Amino acid sequence: MARIAVVAGDGIGPEVVAQARKVLDAVLPDVQATEYDLGAARWHRTGEVLPDSVLTELAGYDAILLGAVGDPTVPPGVLERGLLLKLRFAFDQYVNLRPSRLWPGVAGPLGNVKPGEVDLVVVREGTEGLYAGAGGSLHRDTPAEVATEESLNTRHGVERVIRDAFVRAGRRERRKVTLVHKTNVLTHAGSLWARTFDAVAAEHPDIETEYQHVDAAAMFLVTQPQRYDVVVTDNLFGDILTDIAAAVTGGIGLAASGCINPEGAYPSMFEPVHGSAPDIAGQGIADPVAAVLSAALLLEQLGHSESAARVNAAVGAELASRVPGATLRTEEVGDRLAAHAVA
Amino acid sequence: MARIAVVAGDGIGPEVVAQARKVLDAVLPDVQATEYDLGAARWHRTGEVLPDSVLTELAGYDAILLGAVGDPTVPPGVLERGLLLKLRFAFDQYVNLRPSRLWPGVAGPLGNVKPGEVDLVVVREGTEGLYAGAGGSLHRDTPAEVATEESLNTRHGVERVIRDAFVRAGRRERRKVTLVHKTNVLTHAGSLWARTFDAVAAEHPDIETEYQHVDAAAMFLVTQPQRYDVVVTDNLFGDILTDIAAAVTGGIGLAASGCINPEGAYPSMFEPVHGSAPDIAGQGIADPVAAVLSAALLLEQLGHSESAARVNAAVGAELASRVPGATLRTEEVGDRLAAHAVA
Ligand SMILES: CC(C)[C@H](C(=O)O)[C@@H](O)C(=O)O
Ligand SMILES: CC(C)[C@H](C(=O)O)[C@@H](O)C(=O)O
Repeated sequence: MARIAVVAGDGIGPEVVAQARKVLDAVLPDVQATEYDLGAARWHRTGEVLPDSVLTELAGYDAILLGAVGDPTVPPGVLERGLLLKLRFAFDQYVNLRPSRLWPGVAGPLGNVKPGEVDLVVVREGTEGLYAGAGGSLHRDTPAEVATEESLNTRHGVERVIRDAFVRAGRRERRKVTLVHKTNVLTHAGSLWARTFDAVAAEHPDIETEYQHVDAAAMFLVTQPQRYDVVVTDNLFGDILTDIAAAVTGGIGLAASGCINPEGAYPSMFEPVHGSAPDIAGQGIADPVAAVLSAALLLEQLGHSESAARVNAAVGAELASRVPGATLRTEEVGDRLAAHAVA
Repeated sequence: MARIAVVAGDGIGPEVVAQARKVLDAVLPDVQATEYDLGAARWHRTGEVLPDSVLTELAGYDAILLGAVGDPTVPPGVLERGLLLKLRFAFDQYVNLRPSRLWPGVAGPLGNVKPGEVDLVVVREGTEGLYAGAGGSLHRDTPAEVATEESLNTRHGVERVIRDAFVRAGRRERRKVTLVHKTNVLTHAGSLWARTFDAVAAEHPDIETEYQHVDAAAMFLVTQPQRYDVVVTDNLFGDILTDIAAAVTGGIGLAASGCINPEGAYPSMFEPVHGSAPDIAGQGIADPVAAVLSAALLLEQLGHSESAARVNAAVGAELASRVPGATLRTEEVGDRLAAHAVA
């Protein structure tokens, strides 16, 4: 039995999560899902973001499925720091996994890249770097104001995520890992990342490696996304690069992610990369594919690789059969995916 | 008379800078150029990166024209921190100006974007943020190693670059400024940037403004680069975004940049965004367009707007006449550009 906490959240979150659950229920009959009301709506109603009691409860699940949280009326940082990042850090989800594929049937924006040619995964560090919350300001609202943000990087944190990237690369066909950083400017953190990468690489002589500066990688993701297999990088670079990777493979409407604690000491969390999209919420027209692909990552993480593969195949069939420009109904897509996944 | 220091540098640097000088000489007969030998070659030969005496001399010029420095045999950071960033910081070049245009005749990678539709300029902060060099490490090469990088942001530094962006937007047709940051995670620096932006915007009611998170901007630069006019952002975000902007407008082979001290208290510096490209150096096949466009930015900065416009027109004609796949000779391109610019 899989015990899953569901945070449907705001905007289109509940709509797409409903489809992900439909698909999960179809491939795994013994899912026990519990809903948690968190996000902008709850904050507006109660002022609460993530009560300690809820955090403690969540720790007891096998996994968390998240829709989307946030809306423009909540000040920046409140839900991000208080909910999303709080969960990532509290549950030590140090592998922020973001696969990008250009699926057959999907028209990406790049003229020279054909479906099937892009299949990469970014292993983004999830618990350190500039996301550590180590910053402050002085003399606020005066001409003398100074504000700092500090990137904290430990050998512990860097090594474990790099090891994870090599393990994942070892399971893939191309067996290549690209480290992305900015060693020529961020010389201290960059050196730690590069030395750790080299040390782990030495234990994996069967895996091809390369290094790129983040600006070059951002460029090559546009001009030559085919060149990447596994990319490992720090928290902020990963945030930016995965949105580029999503853009070149058909948009964040298709992008899934997992915030993973590989050891399973804490629950991992799976969420579409897209936001709550308040502009289209409630209309039943949001694409649930990213949420469903996130559910596939969840299945994979819980050891149900075969079910995960069936869900991915269903998504492949769905995307290949789409007629460009046709209106999409969230529910119907969910029904088709669920049906296909068990067929 | 314009007194210009020329740092041709390494790899293709000397080849492309020669064309930029050819064009400068053509449109401005009274250029007095002095060559400075800096870069990887000098470092290998003498161990020197930027002697203080040279820095002092450089301060006396009206502008600096730079080709490219670096090669893979120099450890990361040596020339970047010791030469490029040293100059940007010592000469208080707080406006790192990076225009991107999809020129007619240039086949960009995006299927749905037509030449002429993209015309944006990124005003990247050049003297603060994570480039300040405020970082360190402890317990190096042990399992306890920790490395930090600190982003330093002052109201002084943020306000002056935002003001510059608004002034530039006021001179353009669309009169729009987009602030890019990551206010939902980097809450201290983000808040400083956002509040300062709002304050400056209030003085410019005629200029349209918007805010985007850096990950969203990275995505929109791929899916909808047409939407941008002037983008203002911090040093590191600007580094990444300008490479994406270059990629979607035909590559860094065409991308120019200026590191500008708008007050003219120090010389501004102009350089193509591309590197020294050791793989094609010495063959006479490097595209000098980025260097020539950088020279146009130099002309603009020194007040020769008309000459700058002529150089830009020459580049436009050159690019429009290019036959895809045809071999390009660096010298011949330079000759054509110089001839066209005075025609
Ligand atoms: C919402 C925000 C905190 C988050 C991040 O920056 O990690 C988002 O952009 C993401 O990529 O999941
Ligand atoms: C070489 C490096 C220091 C530099 C930077 O990061 O600014 C380069 O990438 C650039 O954009 O000019």
